[in-house]
Amino acid sequence: MGGKTTRRRVLRITADGADGADGAARAEDRADLLAVEEPLEIRIDGAPLTVTMRTPGDDIDLAAGFLFTEGLLGSLSDVREIRMCDENVAAVSMRDGASLAVQPSRQFVTTSACGVCGKDSIDAIRVRSRFDVAADPLRVPAALLAALPDRLRAAQRVFASTGGLHAAGLFTADGELLVLREDVGRHNAVDKVAGWALRSGRLPLSGCVLLVSGRASFELAQKAVMMGVPVLAAVSAPSSLAASLADETGLTLVGFLRGASMNVYSGSERVVSAVAGVAAS
Amino acid sequence: MGGKTTRRRVLRITADGADGADGAARAEDRADLLAVEEPLEIRIDGAPLTVTMRTPGDDIDLAAGFLFTEGLLGSLSDVREIRMCDENVAAVSMRDGASLAVQPSRQFVTTSACGVCGKDSIDAIRVRSRFDVAADPLRVPAALLAALPDRLRAAQRVFASTGGLHAAGLFTADGELLVLREDVGRHNAVDKVAGWALRSGRLPLSGCVLLVSGRASFELAQKAVMMGVPVLAAVSAPSSLAASLADETGLTLVGFLRGASMNVYSGSERVVSAVAGVAAS
Repeated sequence: MGGKTTRRRVLRITADGADGADGAARAEDRADLLAVEEPLEIRIDGAPLTVTMRTPGDDIDLAAGFLFTEGLLGSLSDVREIRMCDENVAAVSMRDGASLAVQPSRQFVTTSACGVCGKDSIDAIRVRSRFDVAADPLRVPAALLAALPDRLRAAQRVFASTGGLHAAGLFTADGELLVLREDVGRHNAVDKVAGWALRSGRLPLSGCVLLVSGRASFELAQKAVMMGVPVLAAVSAPSSLAASLADETGLTLVGFLRGASMNVYSGSERVVSAVAGVAAS
Repeated sequence: MGGKTTRRRVLRITADGADGADGAARAEDRADLLAVEEPLEIRIDGAPLTVTMRTPGDDIDLAAGFLFTEGLLGSLSDVREIRMCDENVAAVSMRDGASLAVQPSRQFVTTSACGVCGKDSIDAIRVRSRFDVAADPLRVPAALLAALPDRLRAAQRVFASTGGLHAAGLFTADGELLVLREDVGRHNAVDKVAGWALRSGRLPLSGCVLLVSGRASFELAQKAVMMGVPVLAAVSAPSSLAASLADETGLTLVGFLRGASMNVYSGSERVVSAVAGVAAS
C-alpha cells in the first residue's frame, strides 16, 4: 500500500429501462480508482493508544495533530520522537518524565461518577484550548471566502477521481493556500493540518481560515479552536453543537460555502461584505 | 434538546460581484435549521464505555446496535436492561455473570505486543461476524437497486432541510423500506438500524439491502456483515478497505448508486441485469 488511491475492477451497471424504450441495460467491466483506507495505530511509549481508519500519508502529522487537538499533548517539547515503526503504526516516544495530559475526551467521559448526567454537553466533552480565538482581530471579505472552495478543489484535483476523500485546507487572510490534506476521515484531514502546523512551529494559526470540504461537526470545530484558527468554513452544513461551540469560543463558523453565498452561524463580525454594517453581529 | 433539528438565526451572505455588474453584496438575517448533535455516553454496569456524537433519538437502538456491530455483545440474552438514565446517557445493565465480549476493536488493537505490525490490516481490525453473508442466495435486479435512493430521500424529507444528516435505510428484496434512521454520524445511523433489528429479533438480515446516503467505509461494511446483510449500497464512493472486506466476506458492495447507474465493487453475482450473463462475476 502506501498510495492514496488504488485501482480496482468494477462492474458499471446502468439499470433496465433507464436509457430508452427498449429497456436494455448496460453492464461494463472497467477500472475505478478508490481512496485507500488503512488503520493507523498510535502508540505511546510502546502502548497502543488508539486506531484510526485513515488514508496513508502524512502519518507523523496525523499522530501529532490527533494528540494535540484531543488535548493529550500540550506541545512537542514533551515528545522525544514520533516515527513509523510499521507502515500502519506511529510510535510516539515521550521524554523522560513526560506523559499524556488526559484521557481522550471523545472516547471516555472521565468526570465524576455521574458522567455527563446533568452537565452541559459542551462542558462535558470539550477540550480546553490554550489559544483564545475570540481575541483574533482577523477580518475576511465575503468574496475572498467565496473563492476558497474552488482553490481547494483545484489543489485536490489529483484525488477528485475517487470521490472518496475529505479535504481540509488552511488559508491565509489573503486567500493563499498554506497546506492541503486529504483523507477518508474528515477529522484525520484536519488532524494532519494540525500536526503540520504544530511540527512547523506555526501554532496558533492566528489570522488563518480553515476550510473543510464537507460538514462541520462539533469535533471539527473543537479541533479548529485547539489550533487557534479564528475562522472555520465548511462547504456543507454545520451541526448544532458546532455552532454552540463557536458561540462559546468566539470562533467564526461559516457553512454552505458554495458559489458566491454562505451562511454565517457565529462570529459574523469577521466576515466583511460590501453591505456596510449589515454583517456586523 | 431531544429534537433532531434546531432552529437558529444565521447571516446569509452573497458575496460582492457575484450577482451583477454593480458588485453589490447581499446580507440577510434569517432562520436556518441545523441537525442536532449531542454526545451519547454508553455505560456498562455503571462504568463509562464510550461517547459518540449523535443526533438524539432511537438511543437505546444506538447503544444496542453499537455494542453488537462492534462485537462487544453477541446477543441480547446477556443484557438485563438498556435504559436512558439521562437524555445523553444510555445505561446498559448486564445479567449476572455476563460481560462484554472483547475490547472495542477500532479503538485499541489488543493483539500481541506488536499490535498491527506485520499483520494484514483487515485481520487486525476486523470483528468476526456470527453470520455468513457469502451464503445468502439473494439476487436483486439492478433496476430495483436504482430505485432505492429516491425512496430513501422521500422517507427522509423531514430532515432534508438541514443538509446535515446521514441516512441508513434497510430494504427488503422487493424494495420495501423496513426502517430508516438518520444521524449526524453515518456509523450511528447504521448502528441505529442494527439495534432496531437486534431488538426486534430480525437478525440476521438475510435477503435485505442496506443503503447508506454517503460513502461506504470499512467500518460501515463491517457493520453490514455483522448484521448479516448481504448487500450494502452507497450513494457515494466506497473505500479500498470496504471493498477488500466485501471480497473477503462475500458482501455485495455497490457504490455511486445514482440515477440509473451504479458501480458494483464486489459480489456482482447478486446484481441481476437485463444483459444476460454480463453481471455474473
